[in-house]
Amino acid sequence: MRPTSQPLRLTLVAPEGRMGKAIAEAVADDPGFVLDPDHGDVIVDFSAPEALANSLERATLAAIPILIGTTGLDDLASRRILEASRSVAVLRASNTSLGVALLEELVERAAQVLGTGWDVEVLEIHHRRKRDAPSGTALTLGEAAARGRGTPMRREDARSGRQLEREDGAIGFAALRGGTVVGDHDVIFAGTDERVILSHRADSRMIFARGALAAARFLAGQAPGLYTMRDVVGAL
Amino acid sequence: MRPTSQPLRLTLVAPEGRMGKAIAEAVADDPGFVLDPDHGDVIVDFSAPEALANSLERATLAAIPILIGTTGLDDLASRRILEASRSVAVLRASNTSLGVALLEELVERAAQVLGTGWDVEVLEIHHRRKRDAPSGTALTLGEAAARGRGTPMRREDARSGRQLEREDGAIGFAALRGGTVVGDHDVIFAGTDERVILSHRADSRMIFARGALAAARFLAGQAPGLYTMRDVVGAL
Amino acid sequence: MRPTSQPLRLTLVAPEGRMGKAIAEAVADDPGFVLDPDHGDVIVDFSAPEALANSLERATLAAIPILIGTTGLDDLASRRILEASRSVAVLRASNTSLGVALLEELVERAAQVLGTGWDVEVLEIHHRRKRDAPSGTALTLGEAAARGRGTPMRREDARSGRQLEREDGAIGFAALRGGTVVGDHDVIFAGTDERVILSHRADSRMIFARGALAAARFLAGQAPGLYTMRDVVGAL
Amino acid sequence: MRPTSQPLRLTLVAPEGRMGKAIAEAVADDPGFVLDPDHGDVIVDFSAPEALANSLERATLAAIPILIGTTGLDDLASRRILEASRSVAVLRASNTSLGVALLEELVERAAQVLGTGWDVEVLEIHHRRKRDAPSGTALTLGEAAARGRGTPMRREDARSGRQLEREDGAIGFAALRGGTVVGDHDVIFAGTDERVILSHRADSRMIFARGALAAARFLAGQAPGLYTMRDVVGAL
Repeated sequence: MRPTSQPLRLTLVAPEGRMGKAIAEAVADDPGFVLDPDHGDVIVDFSAPEALANSLERATLAAIPILIGTTGLDDLASRRILEASRSVAVLRASNTSLGVALLEELVERAAQVLGTGWDVEVLEIHHRRKRDAPSGTALTLGEAAARGRGTPMRREDARSGRQLEREDGAIGFAALRGGTVVGDHDVIFAGTDERVILSHRADSRMIFARGALAAARFLAGQAPGLYTMRDVVGAL
Repeated sequence: MRPTSQPLRLTLVAPEGRMGKAIAEAVADDPGFVLDPDHGDVIVDFSAPEALANSLERATLAAIPILIGTTGLDDLASRRILEASRSVAVLRASNTSLGVALLEELVERAAQVLGTGWDVEVLEIHHRRKRDAPSGTALTLGEAAARGRGTPMRREDARSGRQLEREDGAIGFAALRGGTVVGDHDVIFAGTDERVILSHRADSRMIFARGALAAARFLAGQAPGLYTMRDVVGAL
Repeated sequence: MRPTSQPLRLTLVAPEGRMGKAIAEAVADDPGFVLDPDHGDVIVDFSAPEALANSLERATLAAIPILIGTTGLDDLASRRILEASRSVAVLRASNTSLGVALLEELVERAAQVLGTGWDVEVLEIHHRRKRDAPSGTALTLGEAAARGRGTPMRREDARSGRQLEREDGAIGFAALRGGTVVGDHDVIFAGTDERVILSHRADSRMIFARGALAAARFLAGQAPGLYTMRDVVGAL
Repeated sequence: MRPTSQPLRLTLVAPEGRMGKAIAEAVADDPGFVLDPDHGDVIVDFSAPEALANSLERATLAAIPILIGTTGLDDLASRRILEASRSVAVLRASNTSLGVALLEELVERAAQVLGTGWDVEVLEIHHRRKRDAPSGTALTLGEAAARGRGTPMRREDARSGRQLEREDGAIGFAALRGGTVVGDHDVIFAGTDERVILSHRADSRMIFARGALAAARFLAGQAPGLYTMRDVVGAL
């Protein structure tokens, strides 16, 4: 790992994009990082699917790690990422909040301990303009719970009606929408006469930029391979 | 109103039923009330639809008020209740918790002040065996919000999918189910950068029995008419 | 009241201050308002105690209403405000969030209905740099509860130790500090087996600027007198 | 470990005590356990400090594990427990809720990942008659956070006043008291623009009895040594 006296150099793809600007702002606030358009220690791509092939090529040619936060990638893109991860360290994440990545780990562990005797419900609230429900992060948290239990994920969302039966082992999802809420997630484990609730509250989208810096720090000096935010948390 | 030195006498229909027993327990804990199978000051019926006609007849013949907590009543029953309310005071309630009745009043007022610029979402969680969703109380709270805004209630429950649009003025509902939760309700008013959240937490079904006593106390000495728990709260 | 087709003109004292800038930003987002340094319909002063005398003089000379959000005012300032309110409408507020003002009204009403049999606790969380505890808003909410009960406010904050006794009728306060939290407040009414919880969540300090606009709108055309945010809410 | 077809036999000290009765009720509900006053597989003592010496002697003479839930034990008692743990498995716990034990593990892990850059606050609410504050469980959770960070625990409770400074690395505690609340605990990790909140809600004291059964199940067949609820969770 680089000596801490030297800031880590990030080569930012699409620095004028929404996330590009946020990451540049986070870098400006953190003396541990600088932007370097040409000779970065880590490439950071939160741009658009079209840019991916070029970013991966830059990473593999220069033999430096790459962080990919781009969403909406197709199967071909996934194969390219896998291919690149044979020669450099690649971290792919749809949500780079460190708090959410930690929550995912904790949810998996809680589900493992509590087992199927405790019902799992995932609740999220986002601003009124969010159009998909449940949120991708809610689904990721539900999958972590299923993984912890060692069972396949059986979704039960959008309960409405009569004569409903909550199935044993199901994971329920509920989505609230309103105002300008950045994003709150709660994973509720409901047992007999007690509940364990694991929650995340996001107050600003800047948390994704700061988490991206933590991911870049993790990637610097990592062996080739495909990583996730869980690995970033796992290394802490 | 009766002098407070004398306990109020309740004639309990079906004292061996689930709510009957709970009310008897609440009476035993409260020196302001006694049970009297024959000469009550108020008749309290939380039994079954079949019993209603007889209970109403007892009330009107004896010219004493009646509290009806029976659920699942049909239109004929509603007409009989209205008819009885011309000669005696009748209070009909599907949820006799005083806290919930207060919440309903506060939700209506909040919706009136905040208007349609704030999105309203109603969230509830109940035990895993509850089969209807959203809960009747959640719907009542949503209706109070619509009334406060002065708009018809437009329900938006069970959000799941993509390309969803939260409609202006809609009231969203979400239902969680798990464990042994007695019943939590949250009404969320989500505005720009702020939220007002009005909540109720029920830890035991005894709250319905205690609220029934408050309703009976309200009814004693009331003029003929049809009342609700909102009137009980309004008199406080 | 002015026709709605004409935007309301605000004369902003200290437009370069922190709140001055926020209000200018809120005005820029809202077609119902414009800034006018000289011929405003309402004077808005969120500056410093030293500026107050001059602001009040401008208001009384021009016979226009004034909104005062300045904090840290002494008794002399209070007397000057009262004096000015004999000739123009004056609204004084330490927290101009509309949601908080609504909460204060709801808390007073809830305390009136629930009485002293329900314990009241006020919880707040703010960012780690806030140095006073409990927050001024928490105290205002506690006072609203005491007013609703019709009892003097007996504070019980900072519980720590053994052999503590919660006094009947006391209002408890607890202050959490951490991170960058803008400000959350919860007023908890804890009864037997049930709780009513009335909450406010602030996600940005811009809510105070937007609430200031609502207060200015209320003031325009108001008769002389001393008003509070409660009056703004009460008029809705 | 015993074949699951045979229920585990518990020898309950003071079965007429408050916790003794609760454990007997939990045993009656769970086919995996039976009470046996003389030939138990595990001794369960939730009685009084005076009973401890005799219970430990029974355990060591019969060479069977013992679960100790008695609180208020002095140093001599602690030494006796340590001595006994050299020959039999001993589990000592002041709170046998499985959910709380899990929470403790999760809090330690979260604190390890998040480090001292995130402020930790521990909030609890209990019924109005609880006389110590913060609760023992709140302190245990705070200690888990300090352990996870690898720093000594620096308590900061009962914030009240002006010119307060939240110290770096401190762990804040706040205690609410009201009504009949069995016990809620929240550990709040407040970072920059995000929060992770880990919570437990207890709806009935029966959870301590059920957790005691899980602890007894863990103890059966365990090697001599001194165990805690964390070991019970760790084995799951």
